[in-house]
Amino acid sequence: MEETIFSKILRGEIPCHEVYRDEHVLAFLDIQPIAHGHTLVIPVEPAATLDRLSDASAAAIGSVLPRISRAVLKATGTKDFNVLQNNGAPAHQTVFHVHFHIIPKPNAEEGLGMGGWPAKDIDHAEGAALAAQMRAYLAED
Amino acid sequence: MEETIFSKILRGEIPCHEVYRDEHVLAFLDIQPIAHGHTLVIPVEPAATLDRLSDASAAAIGSVLPRISRAVLKATGTKDFNVLQNNGAPAHQTVFHVHFHIIPKPNAEEGLGMGGWPAKDIDHAEGAALAAQMRAYLAED
Repeated sequence: MEETIFSKILRGEIPCHEVYRDEHVLAFLDIQPIAHGHTLVIPVEPAATLDRLSDASAAAIGSVLPRISRAVLKATGTKDFNVLQNNGAPAHQTVFHVHFHIIPKPNAEEGLGMGGWPAKDIDHAEGAALAAQMRAYLAED
Repeated sequence: MEETIFSKILRGEIPCHEVYRDEHVLAFLDIQPIAHGHTLVIPVEPAATLDRLSDASAAAIGSVLPRISRAVLKATGTKDFNVLQNNGAPAHQTVFHVHFHIIPKPNAEEGLGMGGWPAKDIDHAEGAALAAQMRAYLAED
């Protein structure tokens, strides 16, 4: 994986507003927040995208998301929030080290907005085949 | 927690296109996908929002996200994707049982769109105080 700004933050070469740290995980405030308290949770393990992250690092991040979320909500006095994790430039990823955004949603203007939600009804025959294919890939992974 | 459609899916009272199941986690296709292969990953544990989910269930979900993502990408032939988890109606949550969306991003039209990204530069003095407050809440949680 290429060096990113998060590698430098992990090594302490660039300062951050640290929220949480353990052996596998670092959480810190996004310095360009889209809402007050916008926090990033990243693995110490270098991985550009979530599909390339080890199960152990992904489990470590998962296990602390509830606790960090509670701290973000308490500190900001917010009730609602989004967790977002982008993979690939077309999917809006800008730093190529896995990061989970915890984004408070204090009002309609701040936080995560959705540019529409282009939902369609599933084709159930196609869905059954697709799910079977995913199960087959999972079985051999 | 109130009964949701996901409780019924977990009990097998409503069918789903199952992608993955273990003791703690169920994954299945969203029946109103915003992209082909849009998958939901939910805990067996009933919790309305992520901040109320146990660390163990959150770790179990975390640990399988990379593997399920790989299966979604392979089965759909997509490279880019988003993981999204909404908490609270103002944050676009519609089913009040924790769920992580895995959403392929095959092109600009399908998948997750962003309604802007209203980023501001952080106030560093305010950020330092906020992060300290979060660390204090985490220490006592």
